[in-house]
Amino acid sequence: MSVKKRIELLRHFMDEQGVGLAIVWEPDNQFYVTGFRAISYSRPIVTLIDGEKTQLIIPALEESHAAEKAVVDRTYVYYEHYGQRHRTLTYMDYLSRILNSSDAGMKIGVEIGSLPSSVLLYLQEKGYVLIDIGAKIMEMRSIKDTQEIEMLKIAGHLSDQAIGESLKHVKIGLSELEFDAYGDRLLLETASKKYHDELIGYADWTCSGALRSEMPHLYSSTRRFEDGDVIVHSRQVWFNNYRAENERTFLLGNVTELQKDLLKLAIEAQQVGLDLIRPGLLAKEVDIATYEVFRRAGYADYVQHRVGHGLGLSEHEEPYLRFDNELVLQEGMVYTIEPGIYVPSVGGFRHSDTVILTENGSCLITEYPRDFESMRF
Amino acid sequence: MSVKKRIELLRHFMDEQGVGLAIVWEPDNQFYVTGFRAISYSRPIVTLIDGEKTQLIIPALEESHAAEKAVVDRTYVYYEHYGQRHRTLTYMDYLSRILNSSDAGMKIGVEIGSLPSSVLLYLQEKGYVLIDIGAKIMEMRSIKDTQEIEMLKIAGHLSDQAIGESLKHVKIGLSELEFDAYGDRLLLETASKKYHDELIGYADWTCSGALRSEMPHLYSSTRRFEDGDVIVHSRQVWFNNYRAENERTFLLGNVTELQKDLLKLAIEAQQVGLDLIRPGLLAKEVDIATYEVFRRAGYADYVQHRVGHGLGLSEHEEPYLRFDNELVLQEGMVYTIEPGIYVPSVGGFRHSDTVILTENGSCLITEYPRDFESMRF
Repeated sequence: MSVKKRIELLRHFMDEQGVGLAIVWEPDNQFYVTGFRAISYSRPIVTLIDGEKTQLIIPALEESHAAEKAVVDRTYVYYEHYGQRHRTLTYMDYLSRILNSSDAGMKIGVEIGSLPSSVLLYLQEKGYVLIDIGAKIMEMRSIKDTQEIEMLKIAGHLSDQAIGESLKHVKIGLSELEFDAYGDRLLLETASKKYHDELIGYADWTCSGALRSEMPHLYSSTRRFEDGDVIVHSRQVWFNNYRAENERTFLLGNVTELQKDLLKLAIEAQQVGLDLIRPGLLAKEVDIATYEVFRRAGYADYVQHRVGHGLGLSEHEEPYLRFDNELVLQEGMVYTIEPGIYVPSVGGFRHSDTVILTENGSCLITEYPRDFESMRF
Repeated sequence: MSVKKRIELLRHFMDEQGVGLAIVWEPDNQFYVTGFRAISYSRPIVTLIDGEKTQLIIPALEESHAAEKAVVDRTYVYYEHYGQRHRTLTYMDYLSRILNSSDAGMKIGVEIGSLPSSVLLYLQEKGYVLIDIGAKIMEMRSIKDTQEIEMLKIAGHLSDQAIGESLKHVKIGLSELEFDAYGDRLLLETASKKYHDELIGYADWTCSGALRSEMPHLYSSTRRFEDGDVIVHSRQVWFNNYRAENERTFLLGNVTELQKDLLKLAIEAQQVGLDLIRPGLLAKEVDIATYEVFRRAGYADYVQHRVGHGLGLSEHEEPYLRFDNELVLQEGMVYTIEPGIYVPSVGGFRHSDTVILTENGSCLITEYPRDFESMRF
């Protein structure tokens, strides 16, 4: 779907809601409706959409970048250096000017969950009625088009190669960060050989040993692998901003029978989820079915999280595969399937793979082996 | 400064402002006042501080992690999986309960610049008077203590080694991402050898060629270095969350005389800033002095940004070295010095180094050579 088509859909929603102007703040949402994504840090970027035009407020150092990438009708540049001290110095100046030249009584659409309070207070002070558009944009984003699926597949394939390379080097004494680095490097070399002028990025972390793997989310440290470690390795790879997730739990050396059994159990639960997910099912059904595998085995008390999240431009995207989500799954949605259990003093056990929902079922975009025997080192 | 001392200072400010409860939302601020930092994504973490106790609202999958790391009096856990469906399922439930058990008429401190609008709307609906505490926490964070400086110095040293390793491998045909990967890998290996059970992270990007280097901030791509490229390489490294920044512009092969002159000019401007910065000076003086180097050389029109930003837990931190900032610099502040010029069809030219302000001047924590001859390949 082109940016133009997305703007059309958003305008249709705005019309329905009587919204005269949409202010899009969240960077992934901005990318979705403009094709432009910057490293913005302390310099906010604002996207404004009304019935006739799309506008972008950017800092001076993004001017060339936006000119090359952003699909918008108009760009406003704010400055921060001495030579331009007589010009517009803040994004709020432009926002205020644009609002002042618009219909004073109009409704404004904002992302209630991510708009900073400072901006909300300003809009309230001006007397605008505010409507949430965040949920609508996420709903649009949740169904991926052909082009997005193509990028996700590339990301998934690259993540498989990176995980394979890291696992090739597993040994006692290797640090979590060194383990990550093998995969990172191969990823960047492989991608550089195969693709020209494309953006590739990654995030990965490794939790090793009973104590650390029992915590589902930790940044990698310099801790070294030891004999008997349970190790949970997580990796996301993105290709032109589209992300695949790939996680493997593996066992090093002399692990206990319980640790082996729990990894087998986590693999079994994941397979139940992978086999089950398809359009027409409710989101909650996948979550409950995988949970039941743990419960039947007597490990219900060691579950800590839902079975999966949406994926695309953000690390985690709505809608979630969660027991209280009645959403009917649809073709084009992308999910991680990652049931986990975390047992104190024993370890954490979780594989994660990324699936795209297809007309009749689902298609895995991460394919690194996930069976028990492949996870022994 | 211990977390306890920081809480004391914050409480003192709260007393002055008549604030009964502070809600700290921004992850770096939370780390600063609790010692706890999680990979949170779609699961918000909330820190609450009143006159007697500090409280943390966390998702279930951070329970062990928080128990190990968070310096707080009380922790509330919210759940998202089927087995705990009868328990508290959202952070808002806890927030609401804590507010209901507090003084109804009290003032609440929030970070106006980062609190999501959804939470602000909730607090407004309950009738609370809101006071910004974000600026106060940033003011506290801007002065680093001995322990923070120690971590920053380690980060700086590691960043030097990483940049050196990447530069060792510069050649025509290497991709931006491959160039980054050399430094990344050495960084992780070196840190793993030297430090045990510590968190090390990094972010780096490389903009190569006239077109891409003219844009100050771009993620690395698979573009390959060509003869005659101007290349701007940016790197941040963090050690237990404390960040140093290190950026080098270098020239590959047959570059033009103009490109050489502009790199020399950027190096000269940076040296002016590095020599000048010290306690007692105004933030704006550093910015204007370096700008003047470009202006006198006839390149004022190609400046795009202020000369530097604060550094510590965040990528960019207030207060900034900007022409309109009258702040008096103080011992313990940490800054990047990174004057740059960006000339269309010619390239971008910017080194960045990190300095800590000391009693009588400043101390560089990034020391990789920055002279012109070291930047020719």
